[in-house]
Amino acid sequence: MMKVVIVAILALATTLVSAYDPSPLQDFCVAINNTDSAVFVNGKFCKDPTLVTANDFFFSGLNIPENIAANKVESNVTLVNVDKLPGLNTLGVSLARLDFAPYGLNPPHTHPHSTELLVVIEGQTNAVAFAGLSSQNPRVITIANAVFGSNPPINLDVLAKAFLLDKNVVEYLQKQF
Amino acid sequence: MMKVVIVAILALATTLVSAYDPSPLQDFCVAINNTDSAVFVNGKFCKDPTLVTANDFFFSGLNIPENIAANKVESNVTLVNVDKLPGLNTLGVSLARLDFAPYGLNPPHTHPHSTELLVVIEGQTNAVAFAGLSSQNPRVITIANAVFGSNPPINLDVLAKAFLLDKNVVEYLQKQF
Amino acid sequence: MMKVVIVAILALATTLVSAYDPSPLQDFCVAINNTDSAVFVNGKFCKDPTLVTANDFFFSGLNIPENIAANKVESNVTLVNVDKLPGLNTLGVSLARLDFAPYGLNPPHTHPHSTELLVVIEGQTNAVAFAGLSSQNPRVITIANAVFGSNPPINLDVLAKAFLLDKNVVEYLQKQF
Amino acid sequence: MMKVVIVAILALATTLVSAYDPSPLQDFCVAINNTDSAVFVNGKFCKDPTLVTANDFFFSGLNIPENIAANKVESNVTLVNVDKLPGLNTLGVSLARLDFAPYGLNPPHTHPHSTELLVVIEGQTNAVAFAGLSSQNPRVITIANAVFGSNPPINLDVLAKAFLLDKNVVEYLQKQF
Amino acid sequence: MMKVVIVAILALATTLVSAYDPSPLQDFCVAINNTDSAVFVNGKFCKDPTLVTANDFFFSGLNIPENIAANKVESNVTLVNVDKLPGLNTLGVSLARLDFAPYGLNPPHTHPHSTELLVVIEGQTNAVAFAGLSSQNPRVITIANAVFGSNPPINLDVLAKAFLLDKNVVEYLQKQF
Amino acid sequence: MMKVVIVAILALATTLVSAYDPSPLQDFCVAINNTDSAVFVNGKFCKDPTLVTANDFFFSGLNIPENIAANKVESNVTLVNVDKLPGLNTLGVSLARLDFAPYGLNPPHTHPHSTELLVVIEGQTNAVAFAGLSSQNPRVITIANAVFGSNPPINLDVLAKAFLLDKNVVEYLQKQF
Repeated sequence: MMKVVIVAILALATTLVSAYDPSPLQDFCVAINNTDSAVFVNGKFCKDPTLVTANDFFFSGLNIPENIAANKVESNVTLVNVDKLPGLNTLGVSLARLDFAPYGLNPPHTHPHSTELLVVIEGQTNAVAFAGLSSQNPRVITIANAVFGSNPPINLDVLAKAFLLDKNVVEYLQKQF
Repeated sequence: MMKVVIVAILALATTLVSAYDPSPLQDFCVAINNTDSAVFVNGKFCKDPTLVTANDFFFSGLNIPENIAANKVESNVTLVNVDKLPGLNTLGVSLARLDFAPYGLNPPHTHPHSTELLVVIEGQTNAVAFAGLSSQNPRVITIANAVFGSNPPINLDVLAKAFLLDKNVVEYLQKQF
Repeated sequence: MMKVVIVAILALATTLVSAYDPSPLQDFCVAINNTDSAVFVNGKFCKDPTLVTANDFFFSGLNIPENIAANKVESNVTLVNVDKLPGLNTLGVSLARLDFAPYGLNPPHTHPHSTELLVVIEGQTNAVAFAGLSSQNPRVITIANAVFGSNPPINLDVLAKAFLLDKNVVEYLQKQF
Repeated sequence: MMKVVIVAILALATTLVSAYDPSPLQDFCVAINNTDSAVFVNGKFCKDPTLVTANDFFFSGLNIPENIAANKVESNVTLVNVDKLPGLNTLGVSLARLDFAPYGLNPPHTHPHSTELLVVIEGQTNAVAFAGLSSQNPRVITIANAVFGSNPPINLDVLAKAFLLDKNVVEYLQKQF
Repeated sequence: MMKVVIVAILALATTLVSAYDPSPLQDFCVAINNTDSAVFVNGKFCKDPTLVTANDFFFSGLNIPENIAANKVESNVTLVNVDKLPGLNTLGVSLARLDFAPYGLNPPHTHPHSTELLVVIEGQTNAVAFAGLSSQNPRVITIANAVFGSNPPINLDVLAKAFLLDKNVVEYLQKQF
Repeated sequence: MMKVVIVAILALATTLVSAYDPSPLQDFCVAINNTDSAVFVNGKFCKDPTLVTANDFFFSGLNIPENIAANKVESNVTLVNVDKLPGLNTLGVSLARLDFAPYGLNPPHTHPHSTELLVVIEGQTNAVAFAGLSSQNPRVITIANAVFGSNPPINLDVLAKAFLLDKNVVEYLQKQF
C-alpha cells in the first residue's frame, strides 16, 4: 500500500525568482535536437507535425531514485524539462523530483526564467519532493557557484568588498567552486 | 518507510490545452481578495508589499485525501492556485493533487489558460497523482458540461446535428448536465 | 448596387476560447513555406526582407462562395491566415468568411490560440458572415471530433462515464467521427 | 437577395503598424466603465463575473451606415472595440466598418497597438469595407494631425526642416490641423 | 577632468511610440548573422552556446563622434543594437548616442517596436545625448520619408487631401524623399 | 567645452539577468501613486488620461552627482524609473546614472525583471556611467544581502554547507548584512 504524507506546499516565489513567457504560436511544437545542423534558435526547433505521436508527450522513469551520495550537498534534482519530454516545447511548464539524504540540502539558487512551486513528501530520513516550474526550460543559477566560480572570475577586490570577506577567504572559495 | 512508485510523467499538451502569459511587473504581487470593494481586475489586486510575509508563499493540508466517493466520476482534484496560495499571483504556476477511486476517472476537459503536466503516483486500487500547471489561475472546462450544460443552452438542433445524436438523446443529456 | 444588411456583431469570447501572443521582433516577417528543408519552428520562417513586396500583404478571391453542399454540416469556413496571406506572419490577426446553407451550422468548437469576433451579414436563406480572429494562425478544435474521433481514441469506459452515454452509443459515435 | 462582392483582402501590415499582447489571466474579464471612481488602469476594470451574461458579448447596429458627408475626408470608420462590446476586454481583437463616399479616403495613419486586416466590399460609388484588428482597444494616429496638430506643437523650425517646407506653409498647416 | 552637464531626461513616450515583448526562452541567445544560409527568422538565430564568451556582451567605439556634417538634418544617431552587440539578442534593450550640430535636429519619427528614453548631455553648440530603448532591435520610421518617400508611392490625391497640400507641392515632396 | 570619453558599452546580459514583458494596452498610462487608497495592482494605476501633460514624460536633475561617500561600496546608482518619471508606466524602459569613487564598486547583483546595458563615461578617478534597462520598474537583488541578510534568515547550516564557510563566518556575515 502507498504511504504518502504531504507536509506542505511551498511557493519559492521569493525575490530570487522571475517568471516566463512561452509565446506558443501553434497547438504544439514538439522539440527536436538539431545537433547535426549546428543552428540554434531561442528555444527549440519543432518536429515535423505529421510525425508527432502521443509518445512525444510521455516520460517514464521518475520512480527510480538517483544516487545522491555522490553529490557534495547530498541532494539530487531530476528535472523533466523539454530536453527529456519534447512535447513540452513552447508550453511553459516542467516538473522536477528532488531527493534528499538526511541533512542534505538544495543550495541557494535562482531560476531566471521560471517560478518554482514545491510540494514536500515526507520524510525526515531521506526525503522526496516534487516541484512544478513555470517554464519548459527552467535554468538554474547556484549562487555560490555564480559568484565564486564564474569564468572569467569576478575581480578579487570586488568580491572581498561586496561580501565583507578577507581576500584570502575569497581566493580559497574561488578555488573550491 | 515511504514507498513511492512513480509510473510516468504525462504532459497533457494535447490540442485541447493552451499556454499562458503572466506578465509580472514586480518581484511579487501577493493576491488579496477584494470582495468588499466590488471592483475586479484581470487577475488579482496585490497585498500591501510592506505587509507581505513568508506565510503568503506557504500552504499546508495536501496530505489529507478528500472524500471522493461523493463525486459522480469517483475522482477529486485539489488545486492549489492563487486563491489558496496568494503568493502565486502573477507568477504563472500552480499545483494539483488528484485522487482516484478504483475505476474513477478525470473526464475529458481543457484548460484554456494553462498546460498541465501530470506525474502519476501508484496505485491501481486508489491512485494519487500530482500535476504542475502553467498558470496561477488555471480554469477548467469539462467538455460534457460545457456542451450539454451551458447556460443559455446551445440550440437543440445544433447539438443533434453536430454530435450525430437523436434529439431525444440530446434533450436527455441536457437534463443531466 | 450593393445591399449589405449587417445584423449583429457577436464576440465569441466564451469560456471555450483563449487569446494569443504574437511577439513580433521586426516590422514585418513575411512567412515562407520551408517544405524543402524539413525544418520547423514555432510559427514560420521569414522571407528575405529585401525581397518583400506589397503583394505579400494582399489576397484576393474571397468574393467566390465555396461549395458548401458537400459539407455534412452545410456550412463552410474560408480562412485567410498566414498560409494564404504571408505578410500576416507574427502580426496576430486573420479574417474568415463563413457561408451557411439554410439550416447549415458551425458545430461547437474552440480556438485554442485565438478569440473570434463575428459580424453576421444577412440572410436567412443562405447566409454570409465575416470573422476577425486574434491570431495569424488560429487553430480549430471541433469538439465532437476531438472527443469521439481522437487518434489514439479516448478509452470507451471513460467516454461512456463522462458523457452519461451507453457504451454502444459511444462505439457508434467513435465510428462516425 | 444579398449581393456581396468582395474584391480583396489587404493586410495593412506595413511598417506603420505593430502588434499587441493582451495577456488575459481569466476566461473573461468583461469591461466596465469606472467613471465614478476616477481610478484608471492599463486596460479596463472587470464586471463582477457573477453578473456577466451573453449580452456582454453581443453588439448590434452596424447595418446603419453613418453619415460620412460631415467628414472632411469623406469616409467614416465605425469601430466596435471594448468600449462598445465590453466582452472583448483582454481578448485582443476588434472589428471596424469603413464607409467611403466616392473619392473619399482614409488618410495615412498608424495603429500603435494593433495590426489591421481589411476586406473590401464593393463598390466604386460608395464603398464598404470591414477590418479585423489585433487589439480590443486599437488606437489610431492620423499622421497629418499628429505632426501638424500636436499639443504642445512641434517646433516650427523642426517641421520646416524635416518636411522640406517653407515656414509659412508649416504655419498654415498648423492652423488647419 | 570630465565635465558632464546633464540637463534633463525626456521620455519620448508619446503617442508615436509603442513597446516590445522579447520573450526570451534561455539565459542568453547570442545572435549570429546567417547571411550564408538565406534563412531568416523573427529575430536572430543564436550562436552555439558553448562558443559564447564575455566579448559577445561587449562593444567599444562610442567615444568617437561620427561626422554629422554629411547629414541633411545635421544630426547623427549611433545605435548599439543586436547587430553590433550580439549578446543583446532576445533581451529587449539597446542604447544610442545622438550627436547634434548647432541647429541640427532629429526629425519626427516613431519606433514601432520600442519606447525611447533620452538623457541630454549639454551643450548648445554641438550636443550629445544618450537614449535607452526597450528593444534590442528598435526600428525607426522617419515620418516625412514614410509618407512622401514610400515605395510604391502613396496615391497623389490621397496625400494632397490628407495633408491639405497642393498636388504640385506633394509631387515636389515625393521627388525630395 | 564638453569632454566626454566613452570607453565601452557593456551589456550585463549575464546569466544573472532576465528580461521583461510590459504588455501595454494603451498609448500611455501615466502612473499615479495611490497611497491614499491602500489598493495595489501589478504595476501602477494610471492618471486620468485627460489630465496628462508633456511634463509627465519629463525629468530633470540628473546633472547633480549624489554624495557617494556615505555608501559602504563607494558608488551610487540614481535610477530614473516609473516612480520618478510617471510617463514610463507600461513602456518597459528606464535609465540610471552610476557614480563611482576611486576604487568604488557596484556589488554583484541581479535584476529579476530587466536586462541592463551600460555605457561607461570616463574616468578612473571618479567615474560616471549611464545604463538603459528593459523595464520601467527594474528591481535589484544585491546577492550578498539576499543570501546573508534575508528576513527570515536562511538556515545557518544550509549557508555554511552551500558556501563552504565555517558557521562562525556565516554568523558574522549574517550580522553584517
